[in-house]
Amino acid sequence: MSYSSRLLEESVDALSQLPGIGKKSALRISLFLIRHEKEAILQDFLHPIQEMISKIKFCNTCHNLSDEDECSICLSRKNKAETICVVESIRDVMAIEETGQYKGLYHVLGGVISPLDGIAPEDLNIDDLIQRVQHPDIKEVIMAVSPTIEGETTIYYISKKLKESDVLVSLLARGISFGGELEYADELTLGRSIATRTPYTLSQL
Amino acid sequence: MSYSSRLLEESVDALSQLPGIGKKSALRISLFLIRHEKEAILQDFLHPIQEMISKIKFCNTCHNLSDEDECSICLSRKNKAETICVVESIRDVMAIEETGQYKGLYHVLGGVISPLDGIAPEDLNIDDLIQRVQHPDIKEVIMAVSPTIEGETTIYYISKKLKESDVLVSLLARGISFGGELEYADELTLGRSIATRTPYTLSQL
Repeated sequence: MSYSSRLLEESVDALSQLPGIGKKSALRISLFLIRHEKEAILQDFLHPIQEMISKIKFCNTCHNLSDEDECSICLSRKNKAETICVVESIRDVMAIEETGQYKGLYHVLGGVISPLDGIAPEDLNIDDLIQRVQHPDIKEVIMAVSPTIEGETTIYYISKKLKESDVLVSLLARGISFGGELEYADELTLGRSIATRTPYTLSQL
Repeated sequence: MSYSSRLLEESVDALSQLPGIGKKSALRISLFLIRHEKEAILQDFLHPIQEMISKIKFCNTCHNLSDEDECSICLSRKNKAETICVVESIRDVMAIEETGQYKGLYHVLGGVISPLDGIAPEDLNIDDLIQRVQHPDIKEVIMAVSPTIEGETTIYYISKKLKESDVLVSLLARGISFGGELEYADELTLGRSIATRTPYTLSQL
């Protein structure tokens, strides 16, 4: 692209560093910002981002994103919940919350054990998960980690660490997706879902 | 989406106002910004945008985006050029500059005459185009406006205003696109391109 303005070019370069935004989208966004009132852009667009970057915290307990030292989920559920759901990232917390099916606590690991990427157990929030599980209220730890090799390794590592504790360790159910076509399910999933088939009861529906 | 943080939610809302960015992309960008160093984000990302918004100008002559009162194209070509290319927007200037085929001046109208959208000739930069054309150097005005009803109206209006001036008014050539398949060209374009066919010369290739 040939820009008549260096300022525009620098803004396009800055915006195109963001994930999912190429040069064309960055140009479109820059021209959109130029067309609008300066004050409105500063107030409505730049201010919220600056606020977020400078003020956002991670929950001291579960490592979820939070406005305070303790996140709203921990604050509202810590005296009632008996389960901790272990996830890789903040986005997984959002995805599970979105289902509305889970009312327990979370623990964000910050990744999975992956020697190839140089991620060791010490780099993840595992130690304080083990600590949290010691609390007498906690009866179950749900491993909601991706079913990849790295995920399985992480599940194995944590389960071993929790062996001494008096908690149930459970996995997310694995099998074919709702609404998916059987012929497109991968072999491993389909094979396992036959091996681990569940009895059909009319009340399940 | 259920956000555990109000700050995150506000940032997502701000980002999703931008063109081409939905809630999911906005969340992805927000999490990307959170993961990075505060100082680096402020410097590499927010600073260039703020600079652009507060400092960018429009060229006093051609209304193109510019860092100074006169844009780089006007500055470098004003004593050599004999043509003014009339376009709707800044993006059209970029598109034509990208071709490398044009070395003349530009004039950005800021839109086209569109009574339905409440855009009258007075809302566009037409008066100062007429002024610019009076300059003895200018021999030709190229109408590079979109071939829509509004575009044609604008071309007609400007041409009428320029009737007294001693300049040639020309249009972008219209016809089938290079590399396009004939069967997919629309009827009007194909019909016109037959009616206005050009003699084939070997030197044209």
